[in-house]
Amino acid sequence: MDAHTLTEARPAGGADPMAAQPPTFLESLLAAGLLIQTGVRGLYGRSAVFEGIADGLNAAFTRIGADQNAEVLRFPPAIGKDDFETSEYLKSFPQLAGTIHSFCGDDRGHRQLLARLEDKQDWTDQQQFTGVVMTPAACYPIYPVIGKRGPLPAEGKIVDVMSYCYRHEPSLEPTRMQLFRQREYVCLGSPERIVAFRELWMERGLAFGRALQLPVEVDVANDPFFGRGGKIVADSQRELKLKFELLIPVNDGAPPTACMSFNYHMDHFGALWHIGLHDGGVAHTGCVGFGIERLVLALLKHHGLDPARWPQAVRETLGGI
Amino acid sequence: MDAHTLTEARPAGGADPMAAQPPTFLESLLAAGLLIQTGVRGLYGRSAVFEGIADGLNAAFTRIGADQNAEVLRFPPAIGKDDFETSEYLKSFPQLAGTIHSFCGDDRGHRQLLARLEDKQDWTDQQQFTGVVMTPAACYPIYPVIGKRGPLPAEGKIVDVMSYCYRHEPSLEPTRMQLFRQREYVCLGSPERIVAFRELWMERGLAFGRALQLPVEVDVANDPFFGRGGKIVADSQRELKLKFELLIPVNDGAPPTACMSFNYHMDHFGALWHIGLHDGGVAHTGCVGFGIERLVLALLKHHGLDPARWPQAVRETLGGI
Repeated sequence: MDAHTLTEARPAGGADPMAAQPPTFLESLLAAGLLIQTGVRGLYGRSAVFEGIADGLNAAFTRIGADQNAEVLRFPPAIGKDDFETSEYLKSFPQLAGTIHSFCGDDRGHRQLLARLEDKQDWTDQQQFTGVVMTPAACYPIYPVIGKRGPLPAEGKIVDVMSYCYRHEPSLEPTRMQLFRQREYVCLGSPERIVAFRELWMERGLAFGRALQLPVEVDVANDPFFGRGGKIVADSQRELKLKFELLIPVNDGAPPTACMSFNYHMDHFGALWHIGLHDGGVAHTGCVGFGIERLVLALLKHHGLDPARWPQAVRETLGGI
Repeated sequence: MDAHTLTEARPAGGADPMAAQPPTFLESLLAAGLLIQTGVRGLYGRSAVFEGIADGLNAAFTRIGADQNAEVLRFPPAIGKDDFETSEYLKSFPQLAGTIHSFCGDDRGHRQLLARLEDKQDWTDQQQFTGVVMTPAACYPIYPVIGKRGPLPAEGKIVDVMSYCYRHEPSLEPTRMQLFRQREYVCLGSPERIVAFRELWMERGLAFGRALQLPVEVDVANDPFFGRGGKIVADSQRELKLKFELLIPVNDGAPPTACMSFNYHMDHFGALWHIGLHDGGVAHTGCVGFGIERLVLALLKHHGLDPARWPQAVRETLGGI
C-alpha cells in the first residue's frame, strides 16, 4: 500500500502522514488486503477471506430463517423508474438515490464526448437517464411483484431477498459504503403478523450477535430523512417505534454501527402497490435487514483480521469458515 | 401473468394478443416464474430455481479452474470515474456505459424535484454525476489493482472475478439483459502465457458445454464497437482473432448466443495501467468470461424449464442441482 493510499484512508483532521498515529480501522483493513481501494470513498473490492465471512453469514441467515417458509427472490442491483417513483423514496431520501444514465448520441456527439475527456473536462452532460435506478434497499423490488399477484394467502407471506444496494454517501468509515449487500426477510400480512415477525427476529438477531461473541444492543432508531421537514418524519418514526437497530461498536471513536434493522412499514408499501390481505384489507409489511458488510467488519474488528484465529464457537456459528 | 405482461414480452411485429401464437421463450420463462418482470426490458428478478442453476454453474467453474491458483477478488458492480476513463471504454462503447447520478441540492431543489414528479415531468435534470460508473465487464476493476502492486511474478498471474455488469441495451431477448453476471478468469503475463491460457479455456469451455449436453460451437467474434469508426476496429479484432465466443442457440429464430468468450487484449490493459512483467516489459492480458444468465437460459431452453427433469448427467455436472 503506497503513501497516497494511506493518506486517502485517513479522515481529514488526522491527515499528517508524518505523525506516528496508529492506523485507522480502514487502513488496517486495506493493509491486510481484506478491502481493496478503488480510488472512491466507500467503494472497495473484497478479498477471498472477506467474501468467505460474508458467505458464512448468509448461510447462517438461511439456516436461522429455515422455518419461515420464505420465497427466495433475487434481483439485480437496480429497479425500474416507475416502481422507484411509486416507492416515494425521492420524498424521503433524494440525496441517497442513484440514477443510471447513458450516452444516447451519434458519431458527432461521441466526438464531442471524447474531446471533453481528452481536455479533462466534464463529459457527462450528454448522459441521459436510462429509466433504471440503483436499488436503495434489497426489499424494494419485491412489493410491486407481490402486489401484482393478487391478495396474500390467509397466513401472509415471507420473502427472502439479497442484493447489492447503492446509497450516495461517500465516507471514510468502512461501515458506510456506497455499494453494500443487504440480506432481508420481508413479511407481508396483518399488523399482528408483522409485529410478531419483528419481535421474533429481534430475539433471533440478538441471539445470533451473542453467538458471534459481539457486543450487541438493540435500540429504537430513525432513518436519515432529507431536509428540514425530514426531522419531523424522523421524530414520528422514533415515537411510533417503527425502526429498531442492532448496534455494534465498529468504527474508531464513533457511535456504534447499525448492523441489522427491524422495520415496521405499517401500510406504506401495501397501499402504494395495492398489496391486499386475504380478507380484503391493505397488507402491512415489515422487514429484518442484515448488513452483510457491516457484520463482516464487526467480526473483523472484535475478533481480529485473521478468521483462522477467531474463537472456535464463532467460526462454527458461521458454518466452519 | 396479466395481459399487459404478455404483450410487453412479445416483440413488436408479433404483438397481436388475439393471435394464437406459441409463447416466446421470454414469455415461457416469465409464465414459469423463472424470470420476473420489473417493467423494464432486460431487467428481471430471478426465482430460487434460476439462482440454483446459476450457483451450480459458478461452483462448476470454481472446480474446473481449481488448478489455476487464481486469486479470488470480488468487486461491487461499479468502478470509479478515474479508472473508468483510463479504461478507454468510452472510446469503444459509449452507448453501453452507465454512469450513476444523484440529487445534490437543498430543500428548495428538493421541492422542485417533487413538484416535477407530481406533474409527471422529468425530474432527473438536477441529478449530478457521482463519480461512480457501472461495471461494464467483471474484469475491469482488477487491472488498476494489479498494476499498483508492482511487477507480476515470473509465472504471471490469474485472477478469479464475478460481478453484476451493466450495459444499456434494452431488449426483448432474454439473453440480452441490462444487468447480468459475468464470471471470469483473467490471465496476466507474457503473450505466450495468455495464448496458452486462452487455448486451454477454449478446450475446457467446449468440454463443459458438451458435458451439459448443449449444442456448442466456438467461433471468432468481435465486440460491438460504436459508430462508423467502430467497424474498422471490429474488423481488425476479427482479423487478429482476438476474440472467440462459445455459441449456443437460445432465442427463437435468432442467431446463436455467445455464452462464453475467450479474449486476448494484447497489451491494451497492461499499458493503460502500467502492469509490468517480471523482466520489465508490459504485461499482456486475456480473459475467459462465462455469461451466467446466458448459460442458465441455454440450459432451460434445451433441457426444459424444470431442472428436476433434466438429464441426470447434466444435473451431476452442475454439482447435483
